[in-house]
Order: sequence, then C-alpha cells, then structure tokens
Amino acid sequence: MISYYFNLFGVVMFAMSGAFAALDKNLYKDLFGISFTAFATAVGGGTLRDIILGAHPIAWVADNNYLVAITAGIILMVILRKQLHKIPRILLVFDSIGIAIYTIIGMEKALDLDVAPLAAVVMGLFTAVMGGVIRDTLINEIPQIFRKEIYATACIAGALVYLVLKYTTLPDIWSALISIVTIIGIRLAAVKFRWSLPKLEM
Amino acid sequence: MISYYFNLFGVVMFAMSGAFAALDKNLYKDLFGISFTAFATAVGGGTLRDIILGAHPIAWVADNNYLVAITAGIILMVILRKQLHKIPRILLVFDSIGIAIYTIIGMEKALDLDVAPLAAVVMGLFTAVMGGVIRDTLINEIPQIFRKEIYATACIAGALVYLVLKYTTLPDIWSALISIVTIIGIRLAAVKFRWSLPKLEM
Amino acid sequence: MISYYFNLFGVVMFAMSGAFAALDKNLYKDLFGISFTAFATAVGGGTLRDIILGAHPIAWVADNNYLVAITAGIILMVILRKQLHKIPRILLVFDSIGIAIYTIIGMEKALDLDVAPLAAVVMGLFTAVMGGVIRDTLINEIPQIFRKEIYATACIAGALVYLVLKYTTLPDIWSALISIVTIIGIRLAAVKFRWSLPKLEM
Repeated sequence: MISYYFNLFGVVMFAMSGAFAALDKNLYKDLFGISFTAFATAVGGGTLRDIILGAHPIAWVADNNYLVAITAGIILMVILRKQLHKIPRILLVFDSIGIAIYTIIGMEKALDLDVAPLAAVVMGLFTAVMGGVIRDTLINEIPQIFRKEIYATACIAGALVYLVLKYTTLPDIWSALISIVTIIGIRLAAVKFRWSLPKLEM
Repeated sequence: MISYYFNLFGVVMFAMSGAFAALDKNLYKDLFGISFTAFATAVGGGTLRDIILGAHPIAWVADNNYLVAITAGIILMVILRKQLHKIPRILLVFDSIGIAIYTIIGMEKALDLDVAPLAAVVMGLFTAVMGGVIRDTLINEIPQIFRKEIYATACIAGALVYLVLKYTTLPDIWSALISIVTIIGIRLAAVKFRWSLPKLEM
Repeated sequence: MISYYFNLFGVVMFAMSGAFAALDKNLYKDLFGISFTAFATAVGGGTLRDIILGAHPIAWVADNNYLVAITAGIILMVILRKQLHKIPRILLVFDSIGIAIYTIIGMEKALDLDVAPLAAVVMGLFTAVMGGVIRDTLINEIPQIFRKEIYATACIAGALVYLVLKYTTLPDIWSALISIVTIIGIRLAAVKFRWSLPKLEM
C-alpha cells in the first residue's frame, strides 16, 4: 500500500519533469506535446519493464489513478511553470527522488518475479531512466543518460547496494531507504562536483 | 468479421501512406526502405497496443493476410506513385479514414479486455498514431503528431465521444460511426482551416 | 544445447560490435555509454522478437549468462580496441556471422510457436537487425539497415531460403547451415562489390 502511493508520487514527479522539458523546448509548447511528453516520461520506464517481464496487466492500464496522477502533474506544471522555471534546482531534487524510488520499485518487481539478479539491476535501471530515453528520442535529442553519465550510474550503484543488502538480515524497508539515499546522494554530488565517468580513447 | 475486413482495409491505407512518405524522402527510395517504413506505419500502432495489453497472438504474427495486405499496399503505391503524387489531398483523406478506424478498433480491443476507461482512450490513440511515430523516429524527424497537433487531438476527441456513447443505449455500430465521422471531420477541418492548439509560453 | 552456445557466441559478437560503434563516436566514449550501446545491440533484436511473440521469460532476464557474455564482450573490446580498430574487416566478418546466426535462431523460435510463415521471416529479420536499429536510433543516426540496404535484404534472402528448405526432407541442421552461408555470402559480396538495391524515383 505504501509502495502504491510512493509509485503515484513518483508518477506525479516524473510527469512534472516531462512537462517541464516539453515547455522548455520551442516545438512542444502546445498542450498535446506537453501531455504526451509528460505521459511518456512518467510511465515509459515502468511500461517497458513490465513488457520485458511479461507482467500484465500494466499498472496504468488497469488503474485510472495513474493517468489521473499524470494529468494532475501536467496541470500543476502548467500553472506553476513560471515560478518553477526560476528554481531549476528544485526540479533536479524531484527528479533525483523520482529515479531513486523508481529504481528500487523496479528491482522489487523484478525480484518478486524471480528474475536473474543482474537482470533485476537492469530492470531497476530501465524503470528509472527509460521514460527519459523515450522522451529524448521522441524529441530528437541525445538521451540524457548518455550526456550526464552519472545519472544512470547512480541508479546502477544504488541497485547493486540494494542487491547486496537483500542478502543480509536487514529489514527490506531499510535496504530500500539506504539504496534510495545512495542514489540521491551520488546524483546530487555528481551535479554539484561535476563528476563524470572517465572517457576511453580509441 | 466486418471489423476484420475494416482492419485489413486500414492496413492497406496505412501501408500506402508509409510507402508514400518513404518515397517522398531521398534516403529511402530503395525497395527495402519503402517496405520497412510501410510495415512499421501499418502495424506499429496495433502491435504496441497489443504488447501493452498483453493481447497475444498479435494479429499480423498469427495471420499471413496482414503481411499480404501490406505487400499489396506497397505494390499499389509503387505502381501509382507518380499519379498519386499529383493529388496529395487523396492521401490526406485516406490517412484520416485510417486513423479514425484505428482509433475505434483500438478502443474496442482495449474495452473488451476490461482496461480502465482512460487507458482505453490512450490505446485508441496509440493504435492510430504510434505507427507514424515509429516511422518518423526511424527516419529521424520530429513525429507528425507533435508538428500537426490536431492530428492526435482529433483521435482523442473521437475516442472520448465513443466512450460517452458507450454508456448510452445507442447500438455500438452507431457509436463507432459517429466517432469515426467526428475524427475525420475534425482532422479535415483542422487542415482546411489551419487549426492548431494554443501554445503555452514559459 | 548447441543453439544455446551459438546464441551466447552471437551475444558476445554483437556486444563487441555495439561497443566498437560507441567507441567510434565521440559522445559515447565513457563506460556507461559503451555498455548500454553494447547491451542494446546484443539483446535488442531478440528482446523485441520475444515481446512480439509473447514468449516469456526472455532469455537474458531468466539467465545471468547473457549479461555475463555481454560484459565479457565489452571488456574484450575495451582491451583490444586499439588493435581491432586497425582491422575493421574482421568486425564486418563477425557482424555478418552474427546477423546470419540470429536470423536463423529468430526464425526457429518463431516457427516453434506456430506463427504465420511470413511473420517468421519478419521475426528472423528483427532478431538480426533490430538491435542495431535501436542502437542507431538512440545515437540519433539513420539506422544502418536503411543506409546499407543489402544488410537487411541478405537476412530476408537467407530467411526465405530457410523457409523453403524446411519443406524439403533435408535435415534441419543442413537447412540452417545453407541459409547461414547464404546470408554471410550475400552480405560480404554486397560490401565487396558495392551492391545496393535499385532506387525508385518519385
């Protein structure tokens, strides 16, 4: 039940970040472009995860509340767009909370279905970042996960932490919280200190 | 049965519109590029819908007639390309009929599987427009649904009309026809009168 | 069992070719970009095939060895990148072997599930080329299958040969080998003699 509301909260955060990205680009400033981008960002990752896992029905297909939450996120962003545009760091925080929650929710779902442990890490990563990949591909940009490398790497690090903690006697809720804090911490530190992965020369 | 032939008719229309788009672009004028684009345009939307719904087997996988219909559409377009190139409005009409039929077919399929009503609207929209989105993404263009906003909005309007009429005592066939005419009407009027959604400033 | 190791061998080949493509482009030279591209190239086609067929669980989700094989391919390419960069023809040979094996593996899987014969050809093609399409779409390039037309056409030709041979009394292993040699032969000849499909004028 807590995980259900967590999930809806993540959906609102991602819908807002998707709508913000669309509003920020000239071509997408009409309401359909904004809504479609918000939708793809909010449910794209989880939908791809469930399709790969064969886990039907997919949450937003069976339950109207997801599309209502997305609509709420869009309306919130349209109303608050001028105020929020002035404080982009708040969106970074929301986005970081969003990918951290989605990584753990995605791993949990995969592990419940008894997938291979490494595949569960990939599923957590996909849940967190593939909404953004779909969004960026649609708007014809190099996906953010390729531009800001620590973005995905933070999710993978948190997912591996969660995988290790699952084998200890720690209660699941603590494993989840420690992993979420790990992801948020790495992400925010990477932005603040401009961390990036080393580049390989050919 | 009628819906089966309707569907195959839509497949031919969309295959022709996909082949036309490929022929119209320099890079795609060889037969493979044309065929692949026609294929993606014709079955992309329905395939994505069935994958999201978990509705297997997918029509064109189980039934050769779909790929035969696509091949027919490609051959027709290759033979008639010079004549049809001179009358683009005919293609607009075919395309509008295609998205209108696909919207209602997609919603019907979703509602049969007892999905949430709002998700059924999304499924109708996906069936109608995602073939074109895949096509445009593959050929590295901003998807048409973002450029001609009323394109998708017409499908959503028709889908909502259909959803409301389903709750009345009207026979389903009339609900379908009224919704299809609504979509075609909005689409053609939008092109003729250059309607577009209002843009939001940041 | 042989098919299992064949498959893992193909995964390593494709992971190497994906990692090479990423290393060859400026933007993707960090380890995450290389790994993600290698992963998408190696399993993208087979994953799309299994999703369309509804054939769960997908191999790499259920079996850690696939992700281990991809990791091995990435490490191999990172270590050998300077040596292999000097002999690009070797990569062409590996890639040609890869698409040939994947085409037949994909068709076999589809025919096992009793799909329509033409759909099995499409499934073989998808298994072979869609990993590359996803990769090229992600890095914002026109997919290779559209630029080097004989690439996909070779797979389709080999798939049709396999389909015909299945109706003869020839043992399956021979049908497979003849089809694989057909694909590799057409592909290498097309590169050597610069074959391409005729272009259609509008």
